[in-house]
Amino acid sequence: MPYFDAASSVPLHPVARQALVAALDEGWADPARLHREGRRARMLLDAARETAAEAVGCRPDELVFTPSGARALHIGIAGALAGRRRVGRGLVVSAVEHSAVLHAAAAHLDAGGTVSEVAVDRSGRVTPSGYEAALEEDTALACLQSANHEVGTEQPVTEVARLCAGAGVPLLVDAAQSLAWGPVEGDWSMLAGSAHKWGGPAGVGLLAVRKGVRFAPPPPADERESGRSAGFENIPAIVAAAASLRAVRAEADAAAARLRAVIDRVRARVPELVPDVEVVGDPVRRLPHLVTFSCLYVDGEALLHALDRAGFSVSSGSSCTSSTLTPSHVLRAMGVLSEGNIRVSLTPGAGAPGSAASVEEDVEHFLTVLPEAVRGVREQLGAPRAPGEPRRPVPPSADLTVDALGTLCPVPVIELAKVIHEVPVGGVITVLADDEAARLDIPAWCEMRGQEYLGAEGTSFRVRRRA
Amino acid sequence: MPYFDAASSVPLHPVARQALVAALDEGWADPARLHREGRRARMLLDAARETAAEAVGCRPDELVFTPSGARALHIGIAGALAGRRRVGRGLVVSAVEHSAVLHAAAAHLDAGGTVSEVAVDRSGRVTPSGYEAALEEDTALACLQSANHEVGTEQPVTEVARLCAGAGVPLLVDAAQSLAWGPVEGDWSMLAGSAHKWGGPAGVGLLAVRKGVRFAPPPPADERESGRSAGFENIPAIVAAAASLRAVRAEADAAAARLRAVIDRVRARVPELVPDVEVVGDPVRRLPHLVTFSCLYVDGEALLHALDRAGFSVSSGSSCTSSTLTPSHVLRAMGVLSEGNIRVSLTPGAGAPGSAASVEEDVEHFLTVLPEAVRGVREQLGAPRAPGEPRRPVPPSADLTVDALGTLCPVPVIELAKVIHEVPVGGVITVLADDEAARLDIPAWCEMRGQEYLGAEGTSFRVRRRA
Repeated sequence: MPYFDAASSVPLHPVARQALVAALDEGWADPARLHREGRRARMLLDAARETAAEAVGCRPDELVFTPSGARALHIGIAGALAGRRRVGRGLVVSAVEHSAVLHAAAAHLDAGGTVSEVAVDRSGRVTPSGYEAALEEDTALACLQSANHEVGTEQPVTEVARLCAGAGVPLLVDAAQSLAWGPVEGDWSMLAGSAHKWGGPAGVGLLAVRKGVRFAPPPPADERESGRSAGFENIPAIVAAAASLRAVRAEADAAAARLRAVIDRVRARVPELVPDVEVVGDPVRRLPHLVTFSCLYVDGEALLHALDRAGFSVSSGSSCTSSTLTPSHVLRAMGVLSEGNIRVSLTPGAGAPGSAASVEEDVEHFLTVLPEAVRGVREQLGAPRAPGEPRRPVPPSADLTVDALGTLCPVPVIELAKVIHEVPVGGVITVLADDEAARLDIPAWCEMRGQEYLGAEGTSFRVRRRA
Repeated sequence: MPYFDAASSVPLHPVARQALVAALDEGWADPARLHREGRRARMLLDAARETAAEAVGCRPDELVFTPSGARALHIGIAGALAGRRRVGRGLVVSAVEHSAVLHAAAAHLDAGGTVSEVAVDRSGRVTPSGYEAALEEDTALACLQSANHEVGTEQPVTEVARLCAGAGVPLLVDAAQSLAWGPVEGDWSMLAGSAHKWGGPAGVGLLAVRKGVRFAPPPPADERESGRSAGFENIPAIVAAAASLRAVRAEADAAAARLRAVIDRVRARVPELVPDVEVVGDPVRRLPHLVTFSCLYVDGEALLHALDRAGFSVSSGSSCTSSTLTPSHVLRAMGVLSEGNIRVSLTPGAGAPGSAASVEEDVEHFLTVLPEAVRGVREQLGAPRAPGEPRRPVPPSADLTVDALGTLCPVPVIELAKVIHEVPVGGVITVLADDEAARLDIPAWCEMRGQEYLGAEGTSFRVRRRA
């Protein structure tokens, strides 16, 4: 039963498990106490901090542990904004940051601050010049992920950090997805990570704040972790997090080379095996273990369930697969197809957990299962067949309206595809659709099919037949 | 090596350890994901929530897990204050709440809110009428601990909850110290707890918010835990927390009866064995496992180290034993002696961890070690001997000034005690002292010695000899 959702959470690394269990007996006491149990706990905590700091590339006294990566980001953003309040209230983020960053940005906006969102290209990457343009006199903080969690694209952190340093603006790097693979290069000011993304236990995030960065931890005050992260320290988990980060790093280069080849194969084979697929994200400057693709005329949740029944655990950025009914903000910002979206992310390490096979065998098996799974979902949805199938004769009348109001992704696109050949070349189809995903998927379909997207007005989308 | 600091942190209960290790294999995935690993994690989380809710006495959908007890309090207080912002910005707390509550209150004050602190008597207990008087038209929230973490005194939660309900004000109960012993009675609105205080793992707090309580979680938004606690759920630890709470509860009555008798013996024997001791906290309406006493003419940190060398791990609310150099706010609010303060808190369960002996044997051993440890510290400090020792003849001059500026607790009191018999009855001694603890310890000494405390002005404390 191969698990292909490592970007959500990685199963516990054997070293993490071992360290966690070992530390349960020594690390339960309050490290602030002066008695021997407290001193023992403090020693474990100090040692874990040194190990983690070395892997991150900072001084131990620059690094604190938080209860999660989300908290590290929340505290980091709030602390830097408060620390530089006199400079101004400007916050710069990329459009494809993790939701923890974007929610912190929304909270900052609600509190009267300003937020600039730096756009990305179709591969999901920002440009350094995009950041340069966004930095203003009153910019207190800029945030940029090291690599994207949904499509794997690596960001130009070194260049952006240089620009930020030049402008005197601290740069907070969300390194959650990349920390397993290596330290973040460049002159960053702050860095956040999350242990369960590298094979450490849940319950541990880390936040590094370089000396010299003005930082005022968000209230309420608390003495733990240099006043930067409230609450009793979770020492056994912290010990396990630090030990596993070191272990994962020792294996990183070999794992990256191996998984990069496997993912390259997925990127090449999926479009050959499955018609009407868009593989998204940068093909080269990307995380080694992750690939994302979207399938036209497919309901992401249905495909996810079909793959789950076939034994493959993947995730999806399609709408309907989360509680929000909106497609992933990352796919939206990239302007790529969101329907039938599937992310495959492999666990660094030999085979996928729970699988007796190697990751290469698991992925080959996945490639044999995927086409059938997609075909099944398309059939159920009544999706149009391949372009070759016989078409009804085109009537002389030019324009046509399709009412897809009240239907959800991918139905509006399917309805559009069904009738596109019922108007003559040059004719216009108006699709009425109120599903959020239509705004993304109708233009994406047009691009994939060589049709002309004329734009939308409210719930009315206009497409001119070109082919 | 007996561990007597259970009120700081309890070693992992065997059930917690077992559940934690078992859940490591099943509980690492993202419970928000639809694949089988995600569903498995979600089932574990749901089951743990039901178990914890039953122990707390609320519905599962009223309870969320947080990364710590401190976070549960911070989120609970901020959420209730924001949810009832239209009512007003008044917050009522007792003077002896945990610092997490008092720091949240300070943050609320800084943000423009108002805070009323309800005083306690010398046993550390609030009166219901104290809360009644504090509730105003604009009171958004009241907070009261179920029992005090430093002196063990139980608070009149049921009565205060009734008054709050009558006034339409939600009551948040900090149940961190009592949850191991049983559910909190009464019509409370919100409740916070911390797993490592009952033998669960670190990294888990809980927050219950009854249906109908207006609650607006503090930003940034996050979908986890009903939007009330940001960050990836620490499911193995949550499973262990819930399982151990149930296990601890099953043993609670027997453990309470046993430890209550042991603590009663400490309360009775310490004043017999050690001269000039004040046992503080309510002798009857108290936590079963905890006792606190203060020793005149003793440096708390030195005594703690002496006991640690003798193999006993205790904690102290004296100044100099934390980074703050101020005595515990609890002892200050009670107006009791703070010097030479020692808290003994026993682990519910057979013997103290690490000890081959029973808790009864460990405590008997402690009672034989304590007098010598106190004597040693007093000797080092040059404390006055017992009242019986020969005194110098009293000179005719009446008043006297002792300069103890720059010295730390317990030196100012020792200096005062050394000279009290050098003035005639009715004469006045002025002690110059700038240590924070003097404000507490000089009046407490006067009360213990039957001398008259005339008051303080700046760093000048005046005492009239009466005996």
